[in-house]
Amino acid sequence: MPAPLYLEDLVLGQRFISRAHSLDAAQIIAYAREFDPQPFHLDDAAAKSTLFGGLAASGWLVASITMRLVVESVPIAGGIIGGGGEIQWPTPTRPGDMLRADSEIVEIKASRSRPDRGTAVLRVATLNQRDEQRQVVTPRVIVPRRPVS
Amino acid sequence: MPAPLYLEDLVLGQRFISRAHSLDAAQIIAYAREFDPQPFHLDDAAAKSTLFGGLAASGWLVASITMRLVVESVPIAGGIIGGGGEIQWPTPTRPGDMLRADSEIVEIKASRSRPDRGTAVLRVATLNQRDEQRQVVTPRVIVPRRPVS
Repeated sequence: MPAPLYLEDLVLGQRFISRAHSLDAAQIIAYAREFDPQPFHLDDAAAKSTLFGGLAASGWLVASITMRLVVESVPIAGGIIGGGGEIQWPTPTRPGDMLRADSEIVEIKASRSRPDRGTAVLRVATLNQRDEQRQVVTPRVIVPRRPVS
Repeated sequence: MPAPLYLEDLVLGQRFISRAHSLDAAQIIAYAREFDPQPFHLDDAAAKSTLFGGLAASGWLVASITMRLVVESVPIAGGIIGGGGEIQWPTPTRPGDMLRADSEIVEIKASRSRPDRGTAVLRVATLNQRDEQRQVVTPRVIVPRRPVS
């Protein structure tokens, strides 16, 4: 991990690319059993007759894996602390997808009330090995200002 | 589970309340180890010196638990299939929180191109035992129309 980044270090358009995570049917099914037990996330045969036409990952599993990849690849000082944002799943995520997170800084803002911090908005695209967009999320995260030394 | 609901059955303002899920430190830490390994989600002592001031659940764990509660409590025909939406975490989710999902139908729309379906927007508030809002998510979900018999 490179040196932690403070608000002053961020640049609009700055990008961070994560490693790739290999998603298989076992992880899709294990997550679904715990958090999203619907036929199209649990069983390939049962998924055939649904809108998905085959086993697909829960969007929230894609979000969870993406968070892991962002934590590993975006070295914001103090960690990745988000208050929320927009999330979209343009296409279903499938077994065999090699997922990577491509994060871009799209907004940088100093806090008006807190001189020690600001916020940044990231646009995080989760792409597979064919560059198909599986998820796009735009969280607003808290970024500390560089401490005066 | 009551009878599956088709687009024609939905009413603006209709609400669905889930059971409560009891969240403990063990589940917070287990999820964080897999998906969001940051000090404030892994260790209460380490979390003391962070913005959270103590162990807090990853927002994506709250989203995952909420999905489970929605799947159990909102009987849309064909399941809960969302394309995305807005997500916010107004306050940190803590060990000991009893989480329930309070879902409300806030938009109903027939598809212009697909006569067999439409979409609805849910506003899902995740509340604890003191009615503190831990998460609000507004997914747009696909809802089939009642088949012509």
